Amino acid sequence: MATAQTSTPPSPKYKVIGTRPVRHDGIDKVTGRASYGADVQLSGTLSGWIVRSPHAHARIVSIDTSAAEAVPGVRAVVTNADLPEVTDDIEDLGEGAVSISDLNANVLARNKALYRGHAVAGVAADTVHIAEEAAALIRVEYEPLPPVLDVREAMHEDAPLLHDDLLTKEFGETITQQPSNVAARFFYEQGELEKAFDEAALVIEREFRTATVHQGYIEPHSSTAMWNADGHLTVWTCTQGSFAVRQQLSDLLDIPQTYIKVIPTEIGGGFGGKISVYLEPVAALLSRKTGRPVKLTMSRADVFEATGPTPATYMRVKLGVDKEGRIVAGDAYLAYEAGAFPGSPINPGCMCVFACYDIPNARVEGYDVCTTKPRTNAYRAPGSTSAAFATETVVDEICRELEIDPIEFRLNNAAREGTRRVDGVTYPRIGMWETVDAIKASEHWNSPIKKEPPPVLHATGNGSAARLAYGRGLASGFWFNAGLKSSLSATVNADGKVSLVEGSTDIGGTRTSIAMQLAETLGIPAEDINPLVADTDSVGYNDVTGGSRVTHTTGMAAYEAGMMIRGRMIQGAAAIWNVDEGDLQYEEGGVAGPEGKRMTFGELAAKLSQTGEPLSVTATVSAPSAGGAFGTHLVDVAVDIDTGKVDVLRYTAAQDVGTAIHPSYVEGQIQGGVAQGVGWALNEEYFYDETGRMRNATYLDYRMPTCLDLPMIDCLLVEVPNPNHPYGVRGVGEVPIVPPPAAIAAAVYDATGVRLYSLPMSPATVVKKLTQQGGAAAGSSE
Amino acid sequence: MATAQTSTPPSPKYKVIGTRPVRHDGIDKVTGRASYGADVQLSGTLSGWIVRSPHAHARIVSIDTSAAEAVPGVRAVVTNADLPEVTDDIEDLGEGAVSISDLNANVLARNKALYRGHAVAGVAADTVHIAEEAAALIRVEYEPLPPVLDVREAMHEDAPLLHDDLLTKEFGETITQQPSNVAARFFYEQGELEKAFDEAALVIEREFRTATVHQGYIEPHSSTAMWNADGHLTVWTCTQGSFAVRQQLSDLLDIPQTYIKVIPTEIGGGFGGKISVYLEPVAALLSRKTGRPVKLTMSRADVFEATGPTPATYMRVKLGVDKEGRIVAGDAYLAYEAGAFPGSPINPGCMCVFACYDIPNARVEGYDVCTTKPRTNAYRAPGSTSAAFATETVVDEICRELEIDPIEFRLNNAAREGTRRVDGVTYPRIGMWETVDAIKASEHWNSPIKKEPPPVLHATGNGSAARLAYGRGLASGFWFNAGLKSSLSATVNADGKVSLVEGSTDIGGTRTSIAMQLAETLGIPAEDINPLVADTDSVGYNDVTGGSRVTHTTGMAAYEAGMMIRGRMIQGAAAIWNVDEGDLQYEEGGVAGPEGKRMTFGELAAKLSQTGEPLSVTATVSAPSAGGAFGTHLVDVAVDIDTGKVDVLRYTAAQDVGTAIHPSYVEGQIQGGVAQGVGWALNEEYFYDETGRMRNATYLDYRMPTCLDLPMIDCLLVEVPNPNHPYGVRGVGEVPIVPPPAAIAAAVYDATGVRLYSLPMSPATVVKKLTQQGGAAAGSSE
Repeated sequence: MATAQTSTPPSPKYKVIGTRPVRHDGIDKVTGRASYGADVQLSGTLSGWIVRSPHAHARIVSIDTSAAEAVPGVRAVVTNADLPEVTDDIEDLGEGAVSISDLNANVLARNKALYRGHAVAGVAADTVHIAEEAAALIRVEYEPLPPVLDVREAMHEDAPLLHDDLLTKEFGETITQQPSNVAARFFYEQGELEKAFDEAALVIEREFRTATVHQGYIEPHSSTAMWNADGHLTVWTCTQGSFAVRQQLSDLLDIPQTYIKVIPTEIGGGFGGKISVYLEPVAALLSRKTGRPVKLTMSRADVFEATGPTPATYMRVKLGVDKEGRIVAGDAYLAYEAGAFPGSPINPGCMCVFACYDIPNARVEGYDVCTTKPRTNAYRAPGSTSAAFATETVVDEICRELEIDPIEFRLNNAAREGTRRVDGVTYPRIGMWETVDAIKASEHWNSPIKKEPPPVLHATGNGSAARLAYGRGLASGFWFNAGLKSSLSATVNADGKVSLVEGSTDIGGTRTSIAMQLAETLGIPAEDINPLVADTDSVGYNDVTGGSRVTHTTGMAAYEAGMMIRGRMIQGAAAIWNVDEGDLQYEEGGVAGPEGKRMTFGELAAKLSQTGEPLSVTATVSAPSAGGAFGTHLVDVAVDIDTGKVDVLRYTAAQDVGTAIHPSYVEGQIQGGVAQGVGWALNEEYFYDETGRMRNATYLDYRMPTCLDLPMIDCLLVEVPNPNHPYGVRGVGEVPIVPPPAAIAAAVYDATGVRLYSLPMSPATVVKKLTQQGGAAAGSSE
Repeated sequence: MATAQTSTPPSPKYKVIGTRPVRHDGIDKVTGRASYGADVQLSGTLSGWIVRSPHAHARIVSIDTSAAEAVPGVRAVVTNADLPEVTDDIEDLGEGAVSISDLNANVLARNKALYRGHAVAGVAADTVHIAEEAAALIRVEYEPLPPVLDVREAMHEDAPLLHDDLLTKEFGETITQQPSNVAARFFYEQGELEKAFDEAALVIEREFRTATVHQGYIEPHSSTAMWNADGHLTVWTCTQGSFAVRQQLSDLLDIPQTYIKVIPTEIGGGFGGKISVYLEPVAALLSRKTGRPVKLTMSRADVFEATGPTPATYMRVKLGVDKEGRIVAGDAYLAYEAGAFPGSPINPGCMCVFACYDIPNARVEGYDVCTTKPRTNAYRAPGSTSAAFATETVVDEICRELEIDPIEFRLNNAAREGTRRVDGVTYPRIGMWETVDAIKASEHWNSPIKKEPPPVLHATGNGSAARLAYGRGLASGFWFNAGLKSSLSATVNADGKVSLVEGSTDIGGTRTSIAMQLAETLGIPAEDINPLVADTDSVGYNDVTGGSRVTHTTGMAAYEAGMMIRGRMIQGAAAIWNVDEGDLQYEEGGVAGPEGKRMTFGELAAKLSQTGEPLSVTATVSAPSAGGAFGTHLVDVAVDIDTGKVDVLRYTAAQDVGTAIHPSYVEGQIQGGVAQGVGWALNEEYFYDETGRMRNATYLDYRMPTCLDLPMIDCLLVEVPNPNHPYGVRGVGEVPIVPPPAAIAAAVYDATGVRLYSLPMSPATVVKKLTQQGGAAAGSSE
């Protein structure tokens, strides 16, 4: 890909931050040396296989493993009965609360299978073929029950119940007497909502639906476990959070965290889906039974059917505006599918739904609802993308109705420093307004739509024949960005370079973004930092790589480590020169003192390695938030009137990135997020048949955007430094997925006059709507 | 083995120190999980083979590798020409100065082969068999030169020269014009020597010789190297010093230290012999040429012929005493074989030779002499054992001559706090006198020799027929103990246990001895510390595991880390209770405050993991010395008059250990050191033929003591705490090898009246002497 357009040159006050050094892990990745989950090969490793439920909903009457165990080469079979009984219920694992009881029942079904593909048993054998054959001999007697595959149906009084004992909770308090599929209710309000709606000049309310969508990471889950005779467990796994895996395993297996070493491999994508454990505890149990390392690897179908996609949703959003176009009232009802166990991102959805705007009177009601689908999990800005699709679509309708420029509407209504969000948070300095302003000033906004058939049509020879309608859409989005905890250690070597030990697994280039912050602090080149992602024994505690927190929080730790090293270097120089520490300054990559005294970092590193203590430090940080992030996206589309296919012609994403540490990575995050958002918008969904079976669990049938489907995504990096970070860093990875569906829906409307309220806006849906409404009727169609 | 007798119960002031917890690495070692050098298996690894010189001394005229390179499956061949040219000459690598130019020529011969087995070329191939076959096809044209195998012959003016340009240095200054084999002269003196000898009541001077002896570690050297496309080199190797290997590779290969990651495997013994690199640079060069991992493993013969044994020596020691038996004068001349390149432990030998005694007038002269044998290297108390054999034998003769009890003689003459050693060091508080006093008070000293044939004779059925002479001997010894640099990191986990990351390779149980010091500091059980030996990227700088420094210096770092954690816990508790930090104390494994407030370490660990920063710290230490150590040994032997075989019947070793952190380990060190010393005394030596070929390079022919040869070694742990260590630790690992040869020589004399002045006192030597002197004439013979 060509280099993306970026709005901000590196700040002159930084030497390293804002530049684009070659990534430290680059050569390993392009030469194939980087070792991913399935690359782990220990001698004597047994191969595992997971037996999965063929039913979407069934009671497990009995499991007979004897035939499987009798197969020559089979070394062990495990079921939920091999897991310790769960004693503790709710544990906080950082990103989202996780019930260990539910996790226990998810990793190996306990009494019931709650979705097709639910793990029921694990087999370890000398080869994967023996394991697979033996797995087929495990006789599970099921009592099938009716599936429930839709969030609203699941909320019905007479819906089939997934959990006989599930009562609804509201912020921890049980609020129902009768079991249902509704696990939780969330409720936020501020101002005088009814009065505000009554006084509004215009009120629009719409209903929305979005589909179950998967993160679609390239690398399927793969884990290897070795349970040693001394009771210590070592796990190699591709995960976003080695410490989160350690915590979950400790809870599930009832062994101390300290006895578990999680070695994170390289990871081929996660996007929130590689935080929860799936294979790890099963591999561990099989290893304990056999005394051998056991490796389990998922197929692509396993990944789709049995990991954690993002929820399908049902939403209603109602907005009221005064005649100047100021939003005066907002009301939202959100119901998110949790899948088999409670825990959808409904609460962040509630907090995000109105987060871009200053809405004085607002109410949000949210429901976490179990369905017979895989337990949902985090997926890039969890909960926010669906909610933004709803709110931004209503905003677009309001702009159309009042004939207000959508840019001006957003500039008028944008949340700013001091705005109180519906959940009670008052914003610090944020950049929502600035992202809208950046789009307003962009070449894209100030140019007409380039009405040319998309390249992919040319490629198929259908370019000239197609009837195309062109349109432009705009939408904004928000994500919190988490802060949480990070630790790292840094050692200055005698050669003037620095070894950096991180515990944050690197899913998006954080080895480099953290190394750059340490380099900036020390005034040395980024290449002189040698970053390493260590296992859980070898570095202090780190929360998951998620929530767009690592470059922010682990970066803060890098800054602190750098300042500690600077202090030690000043001490050392003071001893060498026999002067007061107070007379010395660390500046421009070295220590300067009176009478023109100066030693560079490299000189001091060499000198201090001879005398005095080794120069090694550990920094630890607990940060409340990584600075809220906003994005505003502009998109031009072409809609094929005959096929309903929507093509993205041009895309510009403006985002408040705080400070872009490595702009290429930031652009990469934005481009990746937009690409996924385009997938949600136009194609991606789980197709279920009436038995609860996913019918498109392959990449051929589950359609994700490819490079042929996407233009270059232009990025406008707006830098409103985060006041709570030494280098102004905000999380950047998540918000870019939020605006695309709403922006594309607005563009489709602009092109065709057809308003779509459900995702994905697949060709079939679009063409059906077009037919209903009589073709391209509005907007800038050809 | 039964538990050894130990003199000191655990100090009541310590809870963990002085106890004997199960070692942390124990289960891995007894179950075969522990991974040693040769256990490293990377996919795609090539096997290497080293071509070695068949000549003890030869000019290398040419090397033709073409035939080898043409063998199918051969991937690369390297010679010294593949090493970067050496630009820098002398580098200090911590334990002993190492010339990089010499190291370069030792790892792959440059121009000359200087001993039989000297590495000349390396081959990497698909299998070890191909590599071996190809190695045989490398045609090296040698111009043989005469070997020189004896230190005194090598010092002759007309001796064959190993190095045409070697001039003698004295403390860094060149003192000769003509090249010779004498690399260095050392000289120390104090007082008025001639006058003191003139006034002495008795003067005895004797000549001594000791043989070349190998450390005899169980595990042969094995190294695997992977030189990555990004210029980073990873090396897996069994070494005593991962950072020393990194430094040597950096110098030899001319790449920054930071680009080299050394991953230390478990190590099957080192004793000083696994500090210098041998295979590592060759594996690295072969990996660079092939782009693949390359593994090299030595045979036992390679280990004997081409690694670093301890030098053979020639020594003269002269002592003068007054009529009360006070030593008034000492004069020593020591010549140690360096082997092929300069660097024998002659300087420590000079400093140790009189170190046990307060000798006001003394002179020591020492020579470092090259011979066509493998380059010597450190071996447990390097230089001291030979020197003690000389001095202690003269002391024993003086006691016999003056009829002074050897205990009383030593109590009278023992070095104490304030004694000035010949090299100018004035002792701090030391425990020489106390070790003699401990022997004096021992059950062994106060019991007669048990005149029973040794069990091994019983076993062979010859017990009753043998003519045995029984005797008892006593000797003392000294070792400095190094301080040097250590770093470690510690992380408190939420479960109240602690992950400890060390960089000191564990050759003798230091994982546990360091963990215990951290546990003591924190007031928690040793089992709650989870120690890990990390690679050079993952922990701060650590000097080699050698010089008996790790339990001392890395232990100091553990103490400091513990104090940092205590401080953080007090901070945390102050915040929780909302009180002043000053009102809180860390005591008895927790924080105590006003009004009976108290939280245990575990409670605080759990609480602080929720709030605040992760509890992770790094401690770094640079220590000047690990506290000098002294030992006095008592031995009873039986000498077979007909065969000359000496059997050790009873052995008691008293040693000032400062504070015994884990008494079982301390006893293990003492027992192991004594066992090796018995080997030196009675059996071990390199047999060379006139061509310079070692004729006994197997464990069948190189006779080390086995458990059949040794009784239980009783240990008297004398604890004179080191005032410069928070827990009083002194190094304990080295001094126990020092007294055995002298003690056994004294016992043989006591048994037979035969005085032996050369090591080993093998049956052939003893029987020859007995025949010369007419059989067992003196002492407590039967």
